[in-house]
Amino acid sequence: MKIFNRDEIEKVIVKSELINAVEEGFRQYSLGNVIVPPVGHLDFEDPPGNVHIKYGAVKGDQTFTIKVANGFYDNPKLGISSSQGVVMVFSQKTGVLEALLFDEGLITDLRTAAAGAVVAKYLAPKKITALGVIGTGIQARLQVEFLKEVLDFDKVYVYGRNTDSVNKYITDMKSKGYTVEQAESVDILAEKTNYIVTTTPSTKPLLLAKNLKTGLHVTAMGADGPGKQEVEAEFIAVADIKVVDSKNQCFVYSDTSFAVKKDLVDKTKVLEIGEIIDNKELGRTNDNQITFADLTGVAVQDIVAAELILSKLGEKKI
Amino acid sequence: MKIFNRDEIEKVIVKSELINAVEEGFRQYSLGNVIVPPVGHLDFEDPPGNVHIKYGAVKGDQTFTIKVANGFYDNPKLGISSSQGVVMVFSQKTGVLEALLFDEGLITDLRTAAAGAVVAKYLAPKKITALGVIGTGIQARLQVEFLKEVLDFDKVYVYGRNTDSVNKYITDMKSKGYTVEQAESVDILAEKTNYIVTTTPSTKPLLLAKNLKTGLHVTAMGADGPGKQEVEAEFIAVADIKVVDSKNQCFVYSDTSFAVKKDLVDKTKVLEIGEIIDNKELGRTNDNQITFADLTGVAVQDIVAAELILSKLGEKKI
Repeated sequence: MKIFNRDEIEKVIVKSELINAVEEGFRQYSLGNVIVPPVGHLDFEDPPGNVHIKYGAVKGDQTFTIKVANGFYDNPKLGISSSQGVVMVFSQKTGVLEALLFDEGLITDLRTAAAGAVVAKYLAPKKITALGVIGTGIQARLQVEFLKEVLDFDKVYVYGRNTDSVNKYITDMKSKGYTVEQAESVDILAEKTNYIVTTTPSTKPLLLAKNLKTGLHVTAMGADGPGKQEVEAEFIAVADIKVVDSKNQCFVYSDTSFAVKKDLVDKTKVLEIGEIIDNKELGRTNDNQITFADLTGVAVQDIVAAELILSKLGEKKI
Repeated sequence: MKIFNRDEIEKVIVKSELINAVEEGFRQYSLGNVIVPPVGHLDFEDPPGNVHIKYGAVKGDQTFTIKVANGFYDNPKLGISSSQGVVMVFSQKTGVLEALLFDEGLITDLRTAAAGAVVAKYLAPKKITALGVIGTGIQARLQVEFLKEVLDFDKVYVYGRNTDSVNKYITDMKSKGYTVEQAESVDILAEKTNYIVTTTPSTKPLLLAKNLKTGLHVTAMGADGPGKQEVEAEFIAVADIKVVDSKNQCFVYSDTSFAVKKDLVDKTKVLEIGEIIDNKELGRTNDNQITFADLTGVAVQDIVAAELILSKLGEKKI
């Protein structure tokens, strides 16, 4: 058994490779070739903490993956990361534990960002006037960096409620070579951009039906659990192409779930990104379409990311 | 994070301590103080393998436990154990992974045996004429060793379908100081004993209603998954005290589940062993009662066993 830490993992990750791996993972998932049991949960109150166990396997692969992702929000008071846990890779042939990846949440962050880039490959309009980012956290940064791998854009508008966070975001992203400007409101951001990514833990819609416009694409990343919502149901209802990472998950929670529960969206009109990857014609076909993608995170992303990382780390597969 | 292997774990285990820990664990479980989410499953066909993820926590304890138990039945062909996996102990206060126990199934075996001993403390008749064991595998051995911690018996009768396995069992147990004799049939075994443990993976009843007799106790260990059955439903129906480790589990699968589904047993008449531990009067009160205990294995056993083992290994709790 091999053990790798965050630094070792970070060094071997190549964005384009991860995007390709996640793309193929989504395709296999939608083809029914991935075993993804329900996520395991364990919640604590004092101090507040929650444990997610995401696990599964691509059928016939060499390995299976179990990710234990622990969020303990008071940890920073103790000087340790709130993101704890481990990604375990086992042999699918023998059940032997082959590697432990102590990634401190890195794999989750990067495979989530990679999913955003996969969506862009199939749903982005030809010309990006400017990229809009709602939120100022880790995904607000990584989404830009991963989208840059697959999209051509010159300018980023960012909207956040906290001015200090927005300023820090702009400073950080400028230092990485991006041209970033603050949008004073979501309305202004939606006016100035035609590709928007929402990355907040919001529990009420930020992007509204009134922000709809011809050719716009929106990827919603934040509504990854019950009660969370970033995009108004009436917005999604109007989108020409409505995409999710997992129908199983997105009809239960996610922005799309609100639209489905309000009977504004017919489930049969929702596509999985994996279906589009397998049949590109189901994606954007012209620059007038409004497209919407809802990403909640699927275990197959962890599985393929862990497999890729292990192969890059020189881990010999049995 | 500390890592311990099977040998290190085996050295620190004291049977009586484990029995006491499992006893208190069952009590907390039945009091509702243990978080035990549904078991996670992952199954593979080629080669055949299954993965069980059992996890949970005693509320307010220092740690929580995730056990990944992998059974890959073709492994012996490759010269490795069919029992793979790991027991992980995390801090309940920070989510930090504190220890990995590479026990190769040892903790599961021992906590299962300890449960059998806990049952004996509350359900055994005063005088054991002889102990009856159905099956010749690991539990058939460990049950005897753990029961010896809490019961006084001189002789063991064993029944198994395979003569070689029975002979090996008798030789092995004699070398440990036990007086063991083969029973030619289940009927003979039931005649000669008044405390029987069934430890087989049988899918049809071995112990039948006709084997009932005054004062008999039976603990069924083997029916730990759908389709498995060792004790006839009509037997359980007649028992004066019907006990399970977990109502949640045992009404779904286990010997008891067959009796419940046949409407031979009223669910409200079934007790959890934890309820009896908390109120001893619910257990055996005289030597005429027929008692039956159905053990399927509950995550709380893994939790308390892992906690005990870690404390014995000198792992300082945070």
